[in-house]
Amino acid sequence: MVDIKTYLKQQSDFINKVLQSYIPKGIPKELFDAMEYSLTAGGKRLRPILVLESAKAVDENINVEDFLDVALSVEFIHTYSLIHDDLPAMDDDDLRRGKPTCHKVFGEAIAILAGDGLLTYAFEMISNNKKINPDILLRVINVLSHNVGVYGMVAGQAADILESFKDIEFIHTNKTAKFISGCCQIGGLLASASEEEVKNLKNYGLYIGLAFQIWDDILDEMGDEEKVGKKLHKDKEKNKVTYPSVYGLEKSVEIAKSYVEKAKEEIKNLKNPDILLFLADYIVSREL
Amino acid sequence: MVDIKTYLKQQSDFINKVLQSYIPKGIPKELFDAMEYSLTAGGKRLRPILVLESAKAVDENINVEDFLDVALSVEFIHTYSLIHDDLPAMDDDDLRRGKPTCHKVFGEAIAILAGDGLLTYAFEMISNNKKINPDILLRVINVLSHNVGVYGMVAGQAADILESFKDIEFIHTNKTAKFISGCCQIGGLLASASEEEVKNLKNYGLYIGLAFQIWDDILDEMGDEEKVGKKLHKDKEKNKVTYPSVYGLEKSVEIAKSYVEKAKEEIKNLKNPDILLFLADYIVSREL
Repeated sequence: MVDIKTYLKQQSDFINKVLQSYIPKGIPKELFDAMEYSLTAGGKRLRPILVLESAKAVDENINVEDFLDVALSVEFIHTYSLIHDDLPAMDDDDLRRGKPTCHKVFGEAIAILAGDGLLTYAFEMISNNKKINPDILLRVINVLSHNVGVYGMVAGQAADILESFKDIEFIHTNKTAKFISGCCQIGGLLASASEEEVKNLKNYGLYIGLAFQIWDDILDEMGDEEKVGKKLHKDKEKNKVTYPSVYGLEKSVEIAKSYVEKAKEEIKNLKNPDILLFLADYIVSREL
Repeated sequence: MVDIKTYLKQQSDFINKVLQSYIPKGIPKELFDAMEYSLTAGGKRLRPILVLESAKAVDENINVEDFLDVALSVEFIHTYSLIHDDLPAMDDDDLRRGKPTCHKVFGEAIAILAGDGLLTYAFEMISNNKKINPDILLRVINVLSHNVGVYGMVAGQAADILESFKDIEFIHTNKTAKFISGCCQIGGLLASASEEEVKNLKNYGLYIGLAFQIWDDILDEMGDEEKVGKKLHKDKEKNKVTYPSVYGLEKSVEIAKSYVEKAKEEIKNLKNPDILLFLADYIVSREL
């Protein structure tokens, strides 16, 4: 029996250890400093872990060294999205994980450019990989750009900030779940999964992505700041629409748990699904 | 004998005609409107034209219909860069080509997201192409992301806005010339050019890119606003470092013309170089 919390900590420590060497060198100093500051500011590293674990779920003997760059590229994209989301014109956040946000330290202009640079460099990293078949890498880029762009994360963020458009399902699906789903699909593609397996991973990712975001909404409303380890009740302050605000707390917990069950159902027939199964359960066991 | 000005007008009309149908549909309305507004605001369409003409220079019988999406993707990236450059935190421009800038019309948040969306969708468009070999498309993505990212345009823009870093060669090479060079390389790759031909196109693009930017600096300082058709003397107002401010006008004209000669030398042995040769000359013949 795996202790999933310990396992995830080991995996995020591993990501943190290798990440530094993938930050591009020989670029203007302020740009490098801003990218490095935000990339190394901590976090669960959930997205690269999902790439690696989805690949292992399909093929337990796979050599993840062959595509560490691809796995890390999704953390570059996640970091870009946090930098741009925190900007004064967007969510206007001064702190992220207890540290001043990128624009607070480096100014808005460099923060915008650091985000642009991280996003663009993610595609450069993937296209630089020499171990994986070009057909697969091209499809990885297609899945990734689709799920983090105007049909995914960018659309979700736009809907979230537009007063006129407050469809909570649309926002959570696009802003959070599609990127997570994309990471799971990418892992499958890298492991030469069948179309059926890729579809299973896609759906698994959508469901755990939704559960993850709903649980975050619940934590924000109900959690103990000390246990959760971050500032809470931000959604209410910002008048954000959340699952608890639409469905109430009890029903939101129920919905999150039902998504976890659906997620597990999707991938139970993969060759090596254990970690992904534990991970799904873990999402709705995080302390309130 | 081709009249290059007429030819370029025909080509940009063609780009304008097909562009509309490539704008992604079914996305949040404000996001679509902002992307469409900036994509269709005019411009020379130099970058997609360079992709198409570089391909034809290598193979005059090539069917450009097979990669119109790839050619247009560079205009998406160019448009993203203009939207982000115009933001208050960056160059803070209210007008672009005589029209209010994206953030003036749609607000800063949507302008940032429209830029992010255009950049990301460029890679989705390229990776969606089903006519070109995946090996080639992956290399196209690699060349493009390299030249518009932290080793190209993003680095140039960072250097341009940082008071402490005013190396005019670095700024012009990175902010302008590398992207133009990337477009020429991409055209070559799409036409299955030899490594030697790709290198020729790369250098051609760097040289015309530098000549183009120096000539823009000269126009900004010396030009007649009515003939040039845009607001001038902006560099001086913003205290930007320019070729005329570093080398004087006469020497700047000389340097631009010498880059054009170097550019022509690079590609004179391609199978079908005429348009690229005319285009190089045209850059330093634009009216002062």
